[in-house]
Amino acid sequence: MEFLGSNILSIDQFDRKDIDLIFKTADQLFPFASRQKITRVLQGAILSNMFFEPSTRTRISFGSAFNMLGGEVRETTEVEATSLAKGESLYDTSRVLSGYSDVIVMRHPLAGSVAEFAKASRVPVINGGDGDNEHPSQALLDLFTIKKELESHKKNIESSRIALIGDLKFGRAVHSLCKVLMLYENISIKLVSPNELKLPNFLVGELKKRNISILETQDIKEGIADVDILYMTRIQEERFNNSSEASKYKGLMSLNQEIYTKNCEPNTVIMHPLPRDSRKDANELDEDLNQNPNLAIYRQTDNGLLIRMALFSLILGVADKIEDTASSVDWFSNKS
Amino acid sequence: MEFLGSNILSIDQFDRKDIDLIFKTADQLFPFASRQKITRVLQGAILSNMFFEPSTRTRISFGSAFNMLGGEVRETTEVEATSLAKGESLYDTSRVLSGYSDVIVMRHPLAGSVAEFAKASRVPVINGGDGDNEHPSQALLDLFTIKKELESHKKNIESSRIALIGDLKFGRAVHSLCKVLMLYENISIKLVSPNELKLPNFLVGELKKRNISILETQDIKEGIADVDILYMTRIQEERFNNSSEASKYKGLMSLNQEIYTKNCEPNTVIMHPLPRDSRKDANELDEDLNQNPNLAIYRQTDNGLLIRMALFSLILGVADKIEDTASSVDWFSNKS
Amino acid sequence: MEFLGSNILSIDQFDRKDIDLIFKTADQLFPFASRQKITRVLQGAILSNMFFEPSTRTRISFGSAFNMLGGEVRETTEVEATSLAKGESLYDTSRVLSGYSDVIVMRHPLAGSVAEFAKASRVPVINGGDGDNEHPSQALLDLFTIKKELESHKKNIESSRIALIGDLKFGRAVHSLCKVLMLYENISIKLVSPNELKLPNFLVGELKKRNISILETQDIKEGIADVDILYMTRIQEERFNNSSEASKYKGLMSLNQEIYTKNCEPNTVIMHPLPRDSRKDANELDEDLNQNPNLAIYRQTDNGLLIRMALFSLILGVADKIEDTASSVDWFSNKS
Repeated sequence: MEFLGSNILSIDQFDRKDIDLIFKTADQLFPFASRQKITRVLQGAILSNMFFEPSTRTRISFGSAFNMLGGEVRETTEVEATSLAKGESLYDTSRVLSGYSDVIVMRHPLAGSVAEFAKASRVPVINGGDGDNEHPSQALLDLFTIKKELESHKKNIESSRIALIGDLKFGRAVHSLCKVLMLYENISIKLVSPNELKLPNFLVGELKKRNISILETQDIKEGIADVDILYMTRIQEERFNNSSEASKYKGLMSLNQEIYTKNCEPNTVIMHPLPRDSRKDANELDEDLNQNPNLAIYRQTDNGLLIRMALFSLILGVADKIEDTASSVDWFSNKS
Repeated sequence: MEFLGSNILSIDQFDRKDIDLIFKTADQLFPFASRQKITRVLQGAILSNMFFEPSTRTRISFGSAFNMLGGEVRETTEVEATSLAKGESLYDTSRVLSGYSDVIVMRHPLAGSVAEFAKASRVPVINGGDGDNEHPSQALLDLFTIKKELESHKKNIESSRIALIGDLKFGRAVHSLCKVLMLYENISIKLVSPNELKLPNFLVGELKKRNISILETQDIKEGIADVDILYMTRIQEERFNNSSEASKYKGLMSLNQEIYTKNCEPNTVIMHPLPRDSRKDANELDEDLNQNPNLAIYRQTDNGLLIRMALFSLILGVADKIEDTASSVDWFSNKS
Repeated sequence: MEFLGSNILSIDQFDRKDIDLIFKTADQLFPFASRQKITRVLQGAILSNMFFEPSTRTRISFGSAFNMLGGEVRETTEVEATSLAKGESLYDTSRVLSGYSDVIVMRHPLAGSVAEFAKASRVPVINGGDGDNEHPSQALLDLFTIKKELESHKKNIESSRIALIGDLKFGRAVHSLCKVLMLYENISIKLVSPNELKLPNFLVGELKKRNISILETQDIKEGIADVDILYMTRIQEERFNNSSEASKYKGLMSLNQEIYTKNCEPNTVIMHPLPRDSRKDANELDEDLNQNPNLAIYRQTDNGLLIRMALFSLILGVADKIEDTASSVDWFSNKS
């Protein structure tokens, strides 16, 4: 694809070359995100960060990414606070707001809404998540994290072994991740989920068509053995058709340090799209893994900043100007 | 009036010379709003964008206008989130917040509240809408749009023919527009509304006193013929005293392409203060007009940015420094 | 303490030398807050202004302080808008958000939450108020105001006479102020409160141990006589065990111009942590004191900006670079 001036609406719009360019750009931005250098390359540019659904992490991540490139951010955080509540069409909202900014990030609970919004916009629109449909920057940061984690162990995405664990039926992040993994060769994937929350058949079919080796299992111990990457997701009890089915799986898809040590290869990387539910009765990633150096969940969110900076840089055409505009950081930072 | 350091509270404070200066300044700012140039003339200045009532469009417009001049924006978006809810007076809120910024924009549901707030402020205050009272930047952007649209057809506000359509009784925007139109010569105005929603007598009287030619009608087809500008506003059914009256007018004040083509002169400009209600049963401007090049509703909101940039420039005394501080836009834009 | 890179969590972490440094830095920042000069020393730096509880005044004050040093601000204003509501731990929220910024200010209704948050953060955290626990910048700005007001009358904190008035039992601001006053010599304090809302015994004991002269009284007229500073706080009726006790004190702890004139020495300074409840039936500082030049409540909030700028400057290590980066203000201001 041509990035300059483009919308980023779906993970489907990227081919392997596009993703390589995004990742190369993200790597170049690392010194800026880790506060070794600053740039003001987008000085004077304005991001409209339109969140018609709460998502603090994603909102702050996009906003900070734009600030780190030198631009300004205007925001909304609530559907009630907008003319949408007075019957205004997405077309009008988009057309009007696009007059006030240079790029728009939009999140909205309704699938398809961001693409509709983008049709009326005079400036590029990035999909920050539209219901259960798409959240392309999440898929990119997940894939980028897999790449960086594997590389730190002298491995590559090609020939990697990945376990997708938890709710594979409804999880938007998992579906998008499957799609981008299809762009790579010799991957094998374990699909680890309760029977009622299996990956949809059409996606399993797609994966197999691309020669990705698939193993489906309901047993987490089998699922997490002999892989390089564990991609955990939350299971919500209300997803099950009946409570006896739910209780059958209660805790069975949870990961903690003991299960990890007993079943995983050394240096198996642990990922999670976050937020992780840390309440006592949640079926989630246990906090006793926080000291495990292979827990990559925070490197994952850090990578989100890089990916979003890369997307802004590419669609606004400044990726190759950043190095020239770099200057030193003159205030305290211990991030680098 | 003297702009430097002044509050902008009411449309009544402007004479013809003031409006000419605002419009001239807005014209000079066009290359900046359309991203041909950037300026950082207000670098270091802070706007407190205080919205005690939701209004995304107006809030983002003021905030972006300030960012485009190089300043920073701090915001509130909710009355609940403020000390006003704990019994703090507007005087205290104003006096305290004015210590944190260089200029304040305030929107509040209560008529008169912004003027009261301005009394205690140490920095200039712009009224961003106080209930059914005043919203001076809306009236200015409406008038500016009328001027620009007419000029694009080699006409002028002087000698123009304007139809005001819809709820003329309660519409704050219409009342303010009437007041600024009185500053021009040889204007004729058609007042097109249901009987129950006619323009208040005192305003009709004022218009006539200024030699503005007035025609009142309930028939939209008569109303939209032989004019240069259609200024549409929303009719809310609850405004009628009884539902039979409401149903009598249901749809009668709506405009669509067919009605436009049959009744209007070529190039009759269509305006609306927005938001427009695009739900099926709304009495509004039909979406089939979106492709009509004379639909000026988005140029209207774009002009709002220029007017707000002009107001900030004038009251902060930088209007004549902007050209000297201009630099090129080095990122992608297709607005210009 | 060493400021560089430190968290600011509690007033207890400061000794007299630390406070002297903060106040000296605040004094140096006065020309910037009063708009005689601007600095961009923190250009490129990002503050995450995390307010998990509404507090417009404090939020805008921190945000503007950071903007005045040249930095950018990202914000949250609602607990509902965050992953905390989905069961995310403070640890995760902190660790993730700290990847997006260079310093965090956090306000949260729960005592101890900010210190817990700081443990996981990769960047310095400033406590913006955690329930009834701590709000260190408030205590610092109160003490700074006492110092500046006394100095304007050629007095010093040493040997000063201070009346603390109102709810001394639950008032977080009063407790913190007591702690910092213990760092000074020869102070005498009058504790003026209803019997049910007396300063906790442990604090009275601490004050006496430091040789601070204490007088406890329920009579406001006795309390406000022969002192240099009146520090008023709000009494909430629901704090009393029964309504007859509450009604006994109704209005007895209120201050107005008449009571002030009859009982106070000339130039007795009036302070209040704000917001002040200006509703008719509130037991508060009367608005007829607004014209009294000794009413210091707005100078107090102005000083808050200086203190917060000073804290940012010290923990980010730019305090001694500000003068070198100063430039002139080229837009209108009448603050200086």
